[in-house]
Amino acid sequence: MYKNTLLEHLGIEFIKNDNGYVVATMPVDNRTRQPFGLLHGGASVALAESVASHGSFELIDKETEAVVGLEINANHVRGKRDGIVTATGTLLHRGRKTMVWDVRITDENGRLICVSRCTMAIIPLEK
Amino acid sequence: MYKNTLLEHLGIEFIKNDNGYVVATMPVDNRTRQPFGLLHGGASVALAESVASHGSFELIDKETEAVVGLEINANHVRGKRDGIVTATGTLLHRGRKTMVWDVRITDENGRLICVSRCTMAIIPLEK
Amino acid sequence: MYKNTLLEHLGIEFIKNDNGYVVATMPVDNRTRQPFGLLHGGASVALAESVASHGSFELIDKETEAVVGLEINANHVRGKRDGIVTATGTLLHRGRKTMVWDVRITDENGRLICVSRCTMAIIPLEK
Amino acid sequence: MYKNTLLEHLGIEFIKNDNGYVVATMPVDNRTRQPFGLLHGGASVALAESVASHGSFELIDKETEAVVGLEINANHVRGKRDGIVTATGTLLHRGRKTMVWDVRITDENGRLICVSRCTMAIIPLEK
Repeated sequence: MYKNTLLEHLGIEFIKNDNGYVVATMPVDNRTRQPFGLLHGGASVALAESVASHGSFELIDKETEAVVGLEINANHVRGKRDGIVTATGTLLHRGRKTMVWDVRITDENGRLICVSRCTMAIIPLEK
Repeated sequence: MYKNTLLEHLGIEFIKNDNGYVVATMPVDNRTRQPFGLLHGGASVALAESVASHGSFELIDKETEAVVGLEINANHVRGKRDGIVTATGTLLHRGRKTMVWDVRITDENGRLICVSRCTMAIIPLEK
Repeated sequence: MYKNTLLEHLGIEFIKNDNGYVVATMPVDNRTRQPFGLLHGGASVALAESVASHGSFELIDKETEAVVGLEINANHVRGKRDGIVTATGTLLHRGRKTMVWDVRITDENGRLICVSRCTMAIIPLEK
Repeated sequence: MYKNTLLEHLGIEFIKNDNGYVVATMPVDNRTRQPFGLLHGGASVALAESVASHGSFELIDKETEAVVGLEINANHVRGKRDGIVTATGTLLHRGRKTMVWDVRITDENGRLICVSRCTMAIIPLEK
């Protein structure tokens, strides 16, 4: 389902999605770098929001509900020039109308690159 | 300078950059959509952070300073399926060590799609 | 209605509330300072969230709806030691289930002290 | 040092402060409630920023450095009418110029009330 989307375009791959716990990876290369050769903060946020969306989608009733991003925020704490980053999403809150996710992005040595929090809205599907 | 970066990869183009006022566009297509055919929130944030970075870079002393994204946040308020979006960045605060930008993303009719605030850090270049 | 609440306790006073445009003031004194004599950032955020709540409450159908704060964020850009601050809230987005407010806090000379964005949730009253 | 400050005024008390791990409490009463009898979201944020500030202050070189709040954000996920709340702050990132804190506020049963992230700036003291 990620064919022909931003996720495929940035090389985002899901490794795990287990009931409020999601892991995904993204390469640091020409697709995700800013002009000075570092991982673009926007790529990190795109990864974080993808993780929260993916995890939320698995938890809703797909017959009657959909899920959309409402708010996202992120701190960029360390630069990275190549290799891959891994994002780990943890569900912090599961309400009737919103879910809140904590997403942490780390490098190959487990060092924190970016920390994000994402609020998803659960909306009833129009019939 | 945007060749072979996330900016080129997502189709981001700068229209204006004038002393704390930046305008850029981004297409809504396979490169920037999520799996349900809507503009991916992460693409909006990538656009917003690009605008803040681009605007900040023009204001620093490039001989002695660099600029990096510290924090970014965004509300997604309206979906969009195709066409282009336009981001307008306005410098809210210019400190010695940080700049704060307000970035608003609108559709072709001027309706708000996303509103973001981005904090940039001004760092001394290592010699 | 602000008697015996945080708003009275911090000295917050509403000056205007006109269809998505709200103005309120707060003193910078022992009630709102941090240990080093500056306006506490938390007091600024309390003021900002009060402004967004107050403005949202005026716009809902009070017979059937209530409004609660969902998310708030703020940048503190300038310190202040005494006097008063003025917060101006502007409605950025009015959806069926959420409202998004921009709130800017300034000093007596109009200089920016804090900029905040607040997402309010509109919830149906339980009967 | 909290005498005659917002912290005393809201009843904030520090329980622990141990090298990047801070615990504090705050009462839910007339001092911290909004007009509908619930804990004011702004009080939660004031508590969160106090925790991050307090923890950061212990980690800096007090002879040469000071610390100020740069950015704070918070999701309010559950209401509360009385009793006390407990905030637990964990240092996520310790850079040369910034620290990033995760702060979670819970009720007496450990249920999440609010989750916040706070960016502190470390600034050189002017001599």
